[in-house]
Amino acid sequence: MPNAQAMLDTYPREFNVDAGLLARAIESLVECANTCTQCADACLSESDPAPLAKCIRLNLDCADVCTTTSRVVSRQTEYDANVTRSLLEACITVCHGCGDECDGHRQHMQHCAICADSCRRCEQVCRELIAAMT
Amino acid sequence: MPNAQAMLDTYPREFNVDAGLLARAIESLVECANTCTQCADACLSESDPAPLAKCIRLNLDCADVCTTTSRVVSRQTEYDANVTRSLLEACITVCHGCGDECDGHRQHMQHCAICADSCRRCEQVCRELIAAMT
Amino acid sequence: MPNAQAMLDTYPREFNVDAGLLARAIESLVECANTCTQCADACLSESDPAPLAKCIRLNLDCADVCTTTSRVVSRQTEYDANVTRSLLEACITVCHGCGDECDGHRQHMQHCAICADSCRRCEQVCRELIAAMT
Amino acid sequence: MPNAQAMLDTYPREFNVDAGLLARAIESLVECANTCTQCADACLSESDPAPLAKCIRLNLDCADVCTTTSRVVSRQTEYDANVTRSLLEACITVCHGCGDECDGHRQHMQHCAICADSCRRCEQVCRELIAAMT
Repeated sequence: MPNAQAMLDTYPREFNVDAGLLARAIESLVECANTCTQCADACLSESDPAPLAKCIRLNLDCADVCTTTSRVVSRQTEYDANVTRSLLEACITVCHGCGDECDGHRQHMQHCAICADSCRRCEQVCRELIAAMT
Repeated sequence: MPNAQAMLDTYPREFNVDAGLLARAIESLVECANTCTQCADACLSESDPAPLAKCIRLNLDCADVCTTTSRVVSRQTEYDANVTRSLLEACITVCHGCGDECDGHRQHMQHCAICADSCRRCEQVCRELIAAMT
Repeated sequence: MPNAQAMLDTYPREFNVDAGLLARAIESLVECANTCTQCADACLSESDPAPLAKCIRLNLDCADVCTTTSRVVSRQTEYDANVTRSLLEACITVCHGCGDECDGHRQHMQHCAICADSCRRCEQVCRELIAAMT
Repeated sequence: MPNAQAMLDTYPREFNVDAGLLARAIESLVECANTCTQCADACLSESDPAPLAKCIRLNLDCADVCTTTSRVVSRQTEYDANVTRSLLEACITVCHGCGDECDGHRQHMQHCAICADSCRRCEQVCRELIAAMT
């Protein structure tokens, strides 16, 4: 998704965070959101989804929170640091929980292995973005 | 939206929070989300939207965060208190910020007055829900 | 959700559709979206969710499409009839499919009975809104 | 976003559409959604956003519709061709409208030029996906 950086380069005002870091965060959030949507669907199509209820539920939460966080950090106009920081913290919490849950299924379901890695990367870049904001 | 309570009453498992409070929270979140979408659009249609850029931006953020929070608190299966709490805290922050901004335009724009009141109610019920969870 | 009508009454420009019908459509869309989110979660928490995979999947689709449709019809600024009409048609299709699926589980699961009724109401008001636009 | 294809390769059931085309569609939808979110924000930060109200509004609609479409086409479980097709048709309509509007600002605003190209690519791949479904 090369557009995130290219779009930031055209933004008409100044912004305070490093554009490269911000673009990486947007890309990771958007990728994690969609990977979680796909993982929830793959879990649902397994022959016995009952033991995967927690995984499906966390995948749905993580998809929603990452999508919303990608939108909020993509907006630079009249930036409110408190809003961005508190949402990044919620996103770190859900990526951590979903990453742990999917990691526990890594051996048996390849979609959970890919999703766990995506959640880990997203959690990490959200931490970097909060650190760069303070 | 009488459905939120009726649906909770049919939920097949137990849940820990008072259903009446949970239903009020879902209703307030859903109402605030849509009111903010309408307020962003009304601000955009004013003859000079330039001074309303901050209001529009916060309305868009608040709509996204309230929608995601309404979905996460509507899910009871394999409930993760850390996820819910951190997202409610982010929702309180954005409702507070958007409520303050809209409140500042209360005298001149009736849509901002209605939206500020909706943000205040939503912030309050999110605080009640966090308190009931601990 | 009395706000939808109140917000429309404060909109700074003219709009072409009857405000009462538009407010009813917004309310039905928002209610159907959240009811489907709750129904997907209730299905997932049943002791054997495997036969409910189709119902969960349609509930998730219907929640997403109704949320997006509620946002698009809530926006009146520089209204594009083609966009609104094609999205309302997609919304009618998914409400119809989800309503049929949930209706088939009406006898055994009360959450599906409530959700089927909500999908039927939403489909109906989307049809009325398209008819009023032409 | 290499995950879309990798996740499809792990899906536990069969699906009818070519996985490569489906992955390209998911990637284009997700990219277009986020580019439109960034374009709406960039337009809002211009010194005089009033003449950009139509562009902002279509960007917001296009972001919402592309996000929802990316989710629906990412779900393969108990696939309903009518739902997918009608939503892809709505997505084509909004990408076409938003692409035209942004294209009209191409000379003066680089963010609209990038966004117009993204909308065109997304419209095209949605057309290919519908054609492959029939």
